[in-house]
Amino acid sequence: MRVGFIGLGRMGRPMAENILAAGHTLVVHNRSPEPVAALAARGAVAADTPAASAGRAEVVCLCLPDPEAVRQVVAGPGGLLEAVCPGLTVVDFSTVDPETSRAMAGLLSERGAFYLDAPVSGGTVGARAGTLTVMVGGDGAAFERARPVLEVVGRHITHVGPSGTGSAVKLANQLIVGVTTAAIAEAMVLVARAGVRPDVAAAVLRSGFARSVVLERHLSDFILKGAFEPAFKLELLEKDVRLACDLGRQTGVRLLVTNLVHQVLVEAKALGFGDQDMAAAIRPLERLAGVEVRAPEV
Amino acid sequence: MRVGFIGLGRMGRPMAENILAAGHTLVVHNRSPEPVAALAARGAVAADTPAASAGRAEVVCLCLPDPEAVRQVVAGPGGLLEAVCPGLTVVDFSTVDPETSRAMAGLLSERGAFYLDAPVSGGTVGARAGTLTVMVGGDGAAFERARPVLEVVGRHITHVGPSGTGSAVKLANQLIVGVTTAAIAEAMVLVARAGVRPDVAAAVLRSGFARSVVLERHLSDFILKGAFEPAFKLELLEKDVRLACDLGRQTGVRLLVTNLVHQVLVEAKALGFGDQDMAAAIRPLERLAGVEVRAPEV
Amino acid sequence: MRVGFIGLGRMGRPMAENILAAGHTLVVHNRSPEPVAALAARGAVAADTPAASAGRAEVVCLCLPDPEAVRQVVAGPGGLLEAVCPGLTVVDFSTVDPETSRAMAGLLSERGAFYLDAPVSGGTVGARAGTLTVMVGGDGAAFERARPVLEVVGRHITHVGPSGTGSAVKLANQLIVGVTTAAIAEAMVLVARAGVRPDVAAAVLRSGFARSVVLERHLSDFILKGAFEPAFKLELLEKDVRLACDLGRQTGVRLLVTNLVHQVLVEAKALGFGDQDMAAAIRPLERLAGVEVRAPEV
Amino acid sequence: MRVGFIGLGRMGRPMAENILAAGHTLVVHNRSPEPVAALAARGAVAADTPAASAGRAEVVCLCLPDPEAVRQVVAGPGGLLEAVCPGLTVVDFSTVDPETSRAMAGLLSERGAFYLDAPVSGGTVGARAGTLTVMVGGDGAAFERARPVLEVVGRHITHVGPSGTGSAVKLANQLIVGVTTAAIAEAMVLVARAGVRPDVAAAVLRSGFARSVVLERHLSDFILKGAFEPAFKLELLEKDVRLACDLGRQTGVRLLVTNLVHQVLVEAKALGFGDQDMAAAIRPLERLAGVEVRAPEV
Repeated sequence: MRVGFIGLGRMGRPMAENILAAGHTLVVHNRSPEPVAALAARGAVAADTPAASAGRAEVVCLCLPDPEAVRQVVAGPGGLLEAVCPGLTVVDFSTVDPETSRAMAGLLSERGAFYLDAPVSGGTVGARAGTLTVMVGGDGAAFERARPVLEVVGRHITHVGPSGTGSAVKLANQLIVGVTTAAIAEAMVLVARAGVRPDVAAAVLRSGFARSVVLERHLSDFILKGAFEPAFKLELLEKDVRLACDLGRQTGVRLLVTNLVHQVLVEAKALGFGDQDMAAAIRPLERLAGVEVRAPEV
Repeated sequence: MRVGFIGLGRMGRPMAENILAAGHTLVVHNRSPEPVAALAARGAVAADTPAASAGRAEVVCLCLPDPEAVRQVVAGPGGLLEAVCPGLTVVDFSTVDPETSRAMAGLLSERGAFYLDAPVSGGTVGARAGTLTVMVGGDGAAFERARPVLEVVGRHITHVGPSGTGSAVKLANQLIVGVTTAAIAEAMVLVARAGVRPDVAAAVLRSGFARSVVLERHLSDFILKGAFEPAFKLELLEKDVRLACDLGRQTGVRLLVTNLVHQVLVEAKALGFGDQDMAAAIRPLERLAGVEVRAPEV
Repeated sequence: MRVGFIGLGRMGRPMAENILAAGHTLVVHNRSPEPVAALAARGAVAADTPAASAGRAEVVCLCLPDPEAVRQVVAGPGGLLEAVCPGLTVVDFSTVDPETSRAMAGLLSERGAFYLDAPVSGGTVGARAGTLTVMVGGDGAAFERARPVLEVVGRHITHVGPSGTGSAVKLANQLIVGVTTAAIAEAMVLVARAGVRPDVAAAVLRSGFARSVVLERHLSDFILKGAFEPAFKLELLEKDVRLACDLGRQTGVRLLVTNLVHQVLVEAKALGFGDQDMAAAIRPLERLAGVEVRAPEV
Repeated sequence: MRVGFIGLGRMGRPMAENILAAGHTLVVHNRSPEPVAALAARGAVAADTPAASAGRAEVVCLCLPDPEAVRQVVAGPGGLLEAVCPGLTVVDFSTVDPETSRAMAGLLSERGAFYLDAPVSGGTVGARAGTLTVMVGGDGAAFERARPVLEVVGRHITHVGPSGTGSAVKLANQLIVGVTTAAIAEAMVLVARAGVRPDVAAAVLRSGFARSVVLERHLSDFILKGAFEPAFKLELLEKDVRLACDLGRQTGVRLLVTNLVHQVLVEAKALGFGDQDMAAAIRPLERLAGVEVRAPEV
């Protein structure tokens, strides 16, 4: 299949590599040139503009940082709308709000093309391994046509419903990740201040009702080690939780806890932790309480 | 070993049954007589007062609803202090605040006895199966002496540190459970209002980064079914989260999210959901948003 | 002076009437025709479009419900930009975000015209009496040229700074009004549940450190009477507090309390109180607590 | 009248001085000796213990920092209960929780004595001027007997209802003061970050709907000057708001905003601002946002 891919960042690049390795013809575009060159060295075709990546493609994938970037790549100068052919399916792996998803779907349908919101969960580890969870909103037939590409990048692939519903579920996912992140920060600083060894507390919490993917990840890979190199940047979590808050505003759902957690992430960004891993959300509270939740030797 | 057991509620009763089944001599006391009779029918000895359960016992277990009940059973009329012999170890499976734990340890040490705060996680399922997580604070030698009993009730048994640290870790556990409960409520009502089928959303969330023991339990066993018969009552969660808030006050740790979630639970209690399962924390938000997150046929 | 006036709602209409009564030539436009007819009967000229109200005017006043309406009236079809002459000053009494204010100022300056953000505080009482507080952002010379109109509608008229600063101060004002509204709700329901007579509590609070314009207004004119006919609708307060939250997002300021209060107002709207007076923010809490803070005879 | 006075702190001392100046016989007790000596120099009698201050007195006034101190002075060693005669009226000017008030009333009534909770609002300025607002709970006849003393210290004196209702209204007052304090912090930091001059913003806010006693006080006397010498310490506000939260817990009232504001005050204490004036609640947010809301020359 001829596939375009726009956005070769931390997530997009390994996904594109897997699509290429699966034998598809790949045309790639990225704002900065370095990842394009790397993919080209493996056999991908480089495209100067989003539009150029879409020519003759059956599927064009997007993996972009925010709704503004998606709107630009679709409808901006040199954007997909300038090149789109009837029957093209755009698969948007970016995390955006449902409103943006529906707007993009509307613009593309005017040209006889399709847009699937197809955000992913699973992090860079899942992106490399091709085991991402993919939640897809949009036309059912377009979903079936895009399936060969979806199955390369993900393991759990679900057609959630009409346009925008994939984005909505992804925001719900990020909401839970964000709130759990804040809960872990409060819990671990609390026990540290109460005189419990962080590694002992972590071992207990892991074995009981508090166990979660986020707890495991944050404590083992980041907090206890004191290593906050980003696998998923805090500022991206802040953005995703903000989009969840906005969806709450639009649908009139009271999101008390989510909005508070958003402000906690705003605080962490203001303190300079935005480009660290999202697990660094514990650091403002550590500083405030005068403790560090570390067990580097573990 | 001769073991006393005080408090034969939803958790205590199966724990006591397991201790009896493991071959220990068991003397039981409970405020209401029915569970005492049931245990006696299986070979336990009935005791009229907490004090009576302690005579000649090496270990006395407590499994009580709140700090006040513990203080009463230990230091009230007919309480353990009236009968305690040097060398006795009191193992308190109740969820209480560290201050209460340390106070009880102090009172018992004046009589040459020991107090271990040994709260558990794992619910009634874990209590019946003898697979609870047990987090123990207090004297190390007393912990070793009580180990035969601890190993009957639990699988993950950790000596966390000095008196009160077991209670502190349990409150951290409950904090995470409570906050995650609130996050799931907001996430599921949000996607339901955005037009996603609850069972589809649940399947996706389960397979990604949002996965947790609490998510699995709340959605599968309660929310989607619309069955809120309590395995763990919402009002107990409210109590535990309140104790976590109090520990934050005492240690000067800012617990923004935990305190907000506590108020959300206060609201759910005020609306009459206190004696339903803690998963019913979603119901006030469902009512407010005019949706129900149900998939009964699943 | 020849003055255009667009937006003859609860606030705009009495302001326009005062401008007319002060002897200015007034050209009015409104979405619904009834208030236009009423003003025309007093001697104003009716205009079919925003653009038509601007012809030969020296000053055009806007008094619109939200940023979208302002953008539409300025830049939409039939909007001011189609008719604007160099030297025109647009005085925007609407409560909008600073970004909208700066964007409008930019668009008008391209035509040699001026835009002043000039939101007001003081309610319909102040609008009728011509005693509003007016906080103005934008060009200093344009401010001086518009002064004859500003002095008709307001008593405290302040040139706050460059474009957008008037809007920023207004949002700060609304933030304080919104948070105080929520505080009064919690305080009054709390004392009512503690068995204090609402009128007695109100009298005490009024005479001490809790005294404020908002306390006086909410208790005397609305809550104690149980009369929630809107002088300022709750849904407008919700909108204004939302804009304050957005300004916090844009400037990176952590607004914990304001964001929570916004959600409390979202809840009140979801419960159907959006078109009652903002003092009705107490009603969800009254319902939840099972009390009513009333003293109708007072 | 013979009057005892216990607690000669920032508030109690000027109140005691006024009672002395009004011609009453005054017997004073205080933990630290200096203020006792100062009062004695003006003609008061010094008492070594609370009990000693009560002998032959008709009224004993308390002005103490928290509920624990009140319980100690009434029921501790050397406390009032050791000396109380039938007919004595204890007037408690301290800010305590209604439960403590009712408990003290109960203990004193067993001896035929009376307890009035009579907390005050108005600050040290009001204490010196004898213009405090006094909200009194308890027996009506005892209130009448204590009136000569109450009228010396206050201007607005209200018999609110039975025992504990004075305390409840005071907590509601402090709740409003605390939440307004937080609102002002968020509002002023927001406009400062948006580029508005703090003194200009303050002048506008003062003249509109945001006007309140707290706004006037905080901005003029503390924030704009950058002078945070305490007239009322932040840590006392934290304590009072905490007691309001506790009253909410006891009565089952959801206090979302109040609990959040309490945590904001906990944060300010943790950052070392506890012994500055309560207006210093703005300082953590200033630090976080990198601005200072000052206009020292004004």
